[in-house]
Amino acid sequence: MNKPLKTIRETKPLIHHITNWVTIYDCANMTRAFGALPVMAHAPEECAEMTGISSALVLNIGTLTSEIIDSMLLSAAAANEKKIPIVLDAVGVGATKFRDEMAAKILGSARIDIIKGNYSEIAKLAGESAETKGVEATSINADPVKIAKQFAKLSSSVIVMTGKEDIISDGERVFVVKNGHELMGSIVGTGCMAASVIGLFAAVNPDYCEASREALCYFGVAGELAASKSNGPGSFKVNLYDEVFNLSDEKVKSMMNFEEQ
Amino acid sequence: MNKPLKTIRETKPLIHHITNWVTIYDCANMTRAFGALPVMAHAPEECAEMTGISSALVLNIGTLTSEIIDSMLLSAAAANEKKIPIVLDAVGVGATKFRDEMAAKILGSARIDIIKGNYSEIAKLAGESAETKGVEATSINADPVKIAKQFAKLSSSVIVMTGKEDIISDGERVFVVKNGHELMGSIVGTGCMAASVIGLFAAVNPDYCEASREALCYFGVAGELAASKSNGPGSFKVNLYDEVFNLSDEKVKSMMNFEEQ
Amino acid sequence: MNKPLKTIRETKPLIHHITNWVTIYDCANMTRAFGALPVMAHAPEECAEMTGISSALVLNIGTLTSEIIDSMLLSAAAANEKKIPIVLDAVGVGATKFRDEMAAKILGSARIDIIKGNYSEIAKLAGESAETKGVEATSINADPVKIAKQFAKLSSSVIVMTGKEDIISDGERVFVVKNGHELMGSIVGTGCMAASVIGLFAAVNPDYCEASREALCYFGVAGELAASKSNGPGSFKVNLYDEVFNLSDEKVKSMMNFEEQ
Repeated sequence: MNKPLKTIRETKPLIHHITNWVTIYDCANMTRAFGALPVMAHAPEECAEMTGISSALVLNIGTLTSEIIDSMLLSAAAANEKKIPIVLDAVGVGATKFRDEMAAKILGSARIDIIKGNYSEIAKLAGESAETKGVEATSINADPVKIAKQFAKLSSSVIVMTGKEDIISDGERVFVVKNGHELMGSIVGTGCMAASVIGLFAAVNPDYCEASREALCYFGVAGELAASKSNGPGSFKVNLYDEVFNLSDEKVKSMMNFEEQ
Repeated sequence: MNKPLKTIRETKPLIHHITNWVTIYDCANMTRAFGALPVMAHAPEECAEMTGISSALVLNIGTLTSEIIDSMLLSAAAANEKKIPIVLDAVGVGATKFRDEMAAKILGSARIDIIKGNYSEIAKLAGESAETKGVEATSINADPVKIAKQFAKLSSSVIVMTGKEDIISDGERVFVVKNGHELMGSIVGTGCMAASVIGLFAAVNPDYCEASREALCYFGVAGELAASKSNGPGSFKVNLYDEVFNLSDEKVKSMMNFEEQ
Repeated sequence: MNKPLKTIRETKPLIHHITNWVTIYDCANMTRAFGALPVMAHAPEECAEMTGISSALVLNIGTLTSEIIDSMLLSAAAANEKKIPIVLDAVGVGATKFRDEMAAKILGSARIDIIKGNYSEIAKLAGESAETKGVEATSINADPVKIAKQFAKLSSSVIVMTGKEDIISDGERVFVVKNGHELMGSIVGTGCMAASVIGLFAAVNPDYCEASREALCYFGVAGELAASKSNGPGSFKVNLYDEVFNLSDEKVKSMMNFEEQ
């Protein structure tokens, strides 16, 4: 897409989240800082209706319960019917049996357009041996590019593996995004926020693989700009919001750093 | 009231919130920054008892569930019995049928002293045709001053409609508050925080219409002061807390901007 | 311990929290800023398993429900079996009968290694007459040092009473920590964060009394450093994260301020 940020700010897509209680506020605020509108609604009585007026659905299992999963399934069905993109952030898959089962339940019950996680979460979902230390990535044995590409083919989803370099594949194309800064890992929630950002780029771009790549480049550029002014995680987070708010398509274009493999 | 902020800081009223999971932290912190004490407690086994030791009750349906609504009704009954003010922030009314029904249930089950929402939320509650884009206001056809005044008469509540200008009415008086800054709309939660601020001013002033007007002037002045030092939503939020903390009745008096119509 | 912070940053202990919805984000971020890894998981289907891969368990009843208490008991049993430290932050004990009962239920069902609260919360738990204003301390009649020491003996737990001076006792030793700054009380959540910090120091030091003392010294030093650069609660919180991130064992050593009584 030529000017995705301009499009987001002009169309202000509504991004419905069913997410975790740790980073819910940051997911909402990051959505707003990019110029889209967040809404968080998880009651089974209304979640499908809320999805029905939204332009993307972001699911995050960070503090899942079986009730929340039921609401996710209701919203996912509504999103599939409306043909709006669903992003699943597979937080903590590999850490407990329950997370593995619930992630599998979601993937088995709805078409998930974009599956996102860190290296070990995606490796585990793809059937590789991998464990997750709580919600943190551990090292994996297999080649992440190969995992992303194969799992994308198998699932017919766009796969997003986040880490020092982010890998994105739709089974044919593979993008490696090198934007970002290590301070992004010093605060909790950058991964969750990245899922929101992917959701809002996918809301305005039907090529979800390109949208995911754009999202991580834009977010990563903001992270680089913020890091250059920061003394630690407190000031970094403040600056990250300011930089996202002041991003432009032109500014990002000159700093984008990715490869197509 | 002559010096409401001084009174708040001297009496430290306890403000009981049953609120949403997105902005719960900011509601608590803003209450504290003004000098009052926040408490958040939603378990049905204790919520009425917690209300019973509080000086105001703030209800916010941002991430409502039917269980949370039941707790709100228990606390609202306790607040009515103790004759402490209840503020209802009607977040997202007009977006889903469930929100409309639950808001109606609350309004039908307890005396709500102050009903707050954005233009479209209040218009919808007042029976006008209005839709809400998630939790965001959409344009309304009717005159907001007329809606506020009529709905206040009908409900015997103080009505607070927030937007570029805030409208407050008890059915007789109408205040239009012009304090505030557009950066307040760039972060999630200023509306929710405003409800907390109304709650803590109402806790020390039995004239709830005046208390609501004061609350929005004070909060708006802090927003203006913060905006003048900020580069975006990240720094704005930091500065907003600092400015609220450093407010004084004298400082606000010189910057207050409202009309009585 | 000689260099606890170095040990934490090298071993990155996983700290499992079952906590409240107000400060959950700050507990996670503070854990990360110190160099440990936070995980928050409360579903009954997975919480014990998550505890099983963790190095400490932090329980906080700030927004308790009976379901959350059930999950806490499952995790506490797993922590006892694995012999990892449990910290209980008794938020709001003394404010409602339900909190008192649920705190008693936890203490009666599991071995709690470290019991933390403000002066009135601990006094109430220890059987003294004390009330809590919501989640805020009120003045107590008895001598806090005596309460801490006696209650530690009675419960065979380390007792941590936080206030202007923090009192820590295992029934034999009594430490009085004087680090900290009054701005720490201007933001919501420093108490909750302190419990997380105690958890991560206890994760690497089997002498829980010393670990608790270290935790409060380190956190208090960061608070002092942050306060010296701050204009109010907004900038204080930002600086607190930066200062924690930039702490070193050497820096804290030169500023530590505590007595053994």
